[in-house]
Amino acid sequence: MADILHRVGIKSSLDEVYKALTTREGLAAWWTNNTQGESKVGGVIQFRFSAGGDEIGGFDMKVLELHPAKRVLWQVVDGPAEWIGTKVSFDLKQEGDYAMVLFKQQGWKEPVEFMHHCSTKWAIYLMSLKSLVETGKGNPNPNDTNISGIGD
Amino acid sequence: MADILHRVGIKSSLDEVYKALTTREGLAAWWTNNTQGESKVGGVIQFRFSAGGDEIGGFDMKVLELHPAKRVLWQVVDGPAEWIGTKVSFDLKQEGDYAMVLFKQQGWKEPVEFMHHCSTKWAIYLMSLKSLVETGKGNPNPNDTNISGIGD
Repeated sequence: MADILHRVGIKSSLDEVYKALTTREGLAAWWTNNTQGESKVGGVIQFRFSAGGDEIGGFDMKVLELHPAKRVLWQVVDGPAEWIGTKVSFDLKQEGDYAMVLFKQQGWKEPVEFMHHCSTKWAIYLMSLKSLVETGKGNPNPNDTNISGIGD
Repeated sequence: MADILHRVGIKSSLDEVYKALTTREGLAAWWTNNTQGESKVGGVIQFRFSAGGDEIGGFDMKVLELHPAKRVLWQVVDGPAEWIGTKVSFDLKQEGDYAMVLFKQQGWKEPVEFMHHCSTKWAIYLMSLKSLVETGKGNPNPNDTNISGIGD
């Protein structure tokens, strides 16, 4: 098993970051514009991505835990085979003026090349989350930063 | 043991990317301006970082493997305790117009919070490498993107 880990610090309150992680409007403003569903425990959120105007797939996340201003835990229930069953968590804590976000996608069966790609891409999206909360403007798909030139 | 994985695609030849990974001038133009030493097998390269005008530490990398246009392998011989002994590799392959860089820092003893930080930071620096090779301008320390607001 292998995990993707990241950390960003956001000049903000924990509440503001939590809101961006747990509302459809928030998620759509940093991860992907095409976000549907409801962020409630037991619910499923659908994230869909596009490139060049075409939908290229996405992920369905079941919401397992919601602890206000503290922790969000999802499990991937549909999407690429390598993602299904992995868990995505965001743990929050305040350090001075910054809300620190510890991110983890745990449970990849193998460290395949796609996992390398997704690790870098998560970093880019977490920087989009940081930008959204600090400036009011994120860079969600389809306006996200292309990291590889192929497909995204 | 835990590993940091990333992948970026750079619109370039493998030779150009390899040059940016194996010359003092190249490394200084995407990772840190303060790069000393020589990239030869058995040699040690010193990378030092600063924030707010003060040096905040760095890494000494022993060069273990150099395969032109294909692979670079370093081992950390000095730096933060968590880094010492870890290995850093860059594997290169051409895909169409893009040089794909598979990055790995392997051998972290524990997935500590510092590892989360370093994972995100590596993504930022690999995007700096991509920018350097594609546009001629990278964002090496001390002009790198601050991801956490604390110290860097």
